[in-house]
Amino acid sequence: MGGARFADKLAAAVARNDSLLCVGLDPDPAQMPEPVRERPDWLTRFAAGIVEATADLVCCYKPNLAFYEALGEAGLAGLRATLRAMPADVPVLLDAKRGDIGVSARAYAAALFDDLGADAVTVSPYLGFDTLEPFLAYGDRGVFVLCKTSNPGAAEFQDQLVAMNGSFRPLYESVAAAAVRANQHGNVGLVVGATHPEAFRNVRAVAPDLPLLVPGVGAQGGDLAMAVDEGQDRRGGGLLVASSRAILYASRGADWQAEARDAAWELRGAINARRQGRAD
Amino acid sequence: MGGARFADKLAAAVARNDSLLCVGLDPDPAQMPEPVRERPDWLTRFAAGIVEATADLVCCYKPNLAFYEALGEAGLAGLRATLRAMPADVPVLLDAKRGDIGVSARAYAAALFDDLGADAVTVSPYLGFDTLEPFLAYGDRGVFVLCKTSNPGAAEFQDQLVAMNGSFRPLYESVAAAAVRANQHGNVGLVVGATHPEAFRNVRAVAPDLPLLVPGVGAQGGDLAMAVDEGQDRRGGGLLVASSRAILYASRGADWQAEARDAAWELRGAINARRQGRAD
Repeated sequence: MGGARFADKLAAAVARNDSLLCVGLDPDPAQMPEPVRERPDWLTRFAAGIVEATADLVCCYKPNLAFYEALGEAGLAGLRATLRAMPADVPVLLDAKRGDIGVSARAYAAALFDDLGADAVTVSPYLGFDTLEPFLAYGDRGVFVLCKTSNPGAAEFQDQLVAMNGSFRPLYESVAAAAVRANQHGNVGLVVGATHPEAFRNVRAVAPDLPLLVPGVGAQGGDLAMAVDEGQDRRGGGLLVASSRAILYASRGADWQAEARDAAWELRGAINARRQGRAD
Repeated sequence: MGGARFADKLAAAVARNDSLLCVGLDPDPAQMPEPVRERPDWLTRFAAGIVEATADLVCCYKPNLAFYEALGEAGLAGLRATLRAMPADVPVLLDAKRGDIGVSARAYAAALFDDLGADAVTVSPYLGFDTLEPFLAYGDRGVFVLCKTSNPGAAEFQDQLVAMNGSFRPLYESVAAAAVRANQHGNVGLVVGATHPEAFRNVRAVAPDLPLLVPGVGAQGGDLAMAVDEGQDRRGGGLLVASSRAILYASRGADWQAEARDAAWELRGAINARRQGRAD
């Protein structure tokens, strides 16, 4: 982590590994593969094993803070060790979904960017973009704003129709438009779930160039082909397709690393098969 | 912490201390009083000093996770020590503003309620109330949902007009109505900033009985009198008026505990002076 601008580091990893795959690190003790389960260092060993198996297949890693926080002090120590051991040329996006105001937002930004050294983070827009300024001010880091999330109840507020440019549009589109306005440093992205493929067209209409972090494929059953078809930017990129469980827990046996690699390989290929403007 | 239901513990503290004051613990290294600043245990000493000075004047303490997370491992250890030392009869609300989906939301709820033992937490509604279920399922703990926040830009999304019961109402009112529907265990509250006093009437119209956590008085310049006038429930309660910096950093000299107590005393009195149905 650290060093290059997030956007440059991401672009380099996308090109080098020919990949839009972002592997999520959601270390769930109940799902650990047999070979690591009983080890005292299972948390770092598991992450290291996944990275070892997939580092040439991904454009980004995305540790989910929820799983680390649930493990208390051991979780924080394990996260820090995992972050230290990350390949220098693969960006790390901390999935934190933080959102708070003023000095508190600054403290969260400092925790994620300064203390943990994240290349990018996820944040929540409900409080308004003024509260995201402390994150956005780190111009060399990525800030992915929740837009249309992948859960079944995402529509409850995100699809509420609001006035926008003389018509009524879903709230998430208004969030996407605000993200475009906030993109002064070229460091803003959006989170759009693959479980709502119709959202990609709406988001791309107002945010044609922002990178999209796309959860919801794999275990959540999102429509990968449609998400890539509608979500890619004009150069066949601009997507980070996130997958966690389907890769991490592809096998819980001795072949867990090989199976994780196979799952990552498959998904990378399925994504690439839908990208435009490519010879393959 | 722990033991009684949050709602019962809160009601007992409100009655015992004749107080709707919730003191926020925002430990900012740059603002530490002189007598604790250089101590290796400054973080726990500061919190202990504030608790010692105010425990008979408050209905709740509200540690803000942002400030603890910014301190890394020392922050988590300090938070845990502070939580262990809390008076058993004052509830602790962890201001976390978390929001994630499915298994991640469950992991956050476990981190806050099981691992840290919070009596109550704050959460964000943007992802929809389905994502709050893992928190709400802890029926004995309080869950305060961000509704109308105290920052200047809160209106950007929270005030967007959406269709509701045949008319157009601000989004935050739709959040308040959803919170009422989700209140199956009597454990749901809302966050409504004192900087937007007009919001209290709107929120109380749809959520007459939910407890409201009210930030924004003190350093943020909210209108305390109006907030209490419009925000209190029909029994002159139902409010947790939050104050952090104005109390914590009332003095940075040798008299910091006495000054913090004075500030808490003043604010408790100012709140009580506006409560209805009281003899005093």
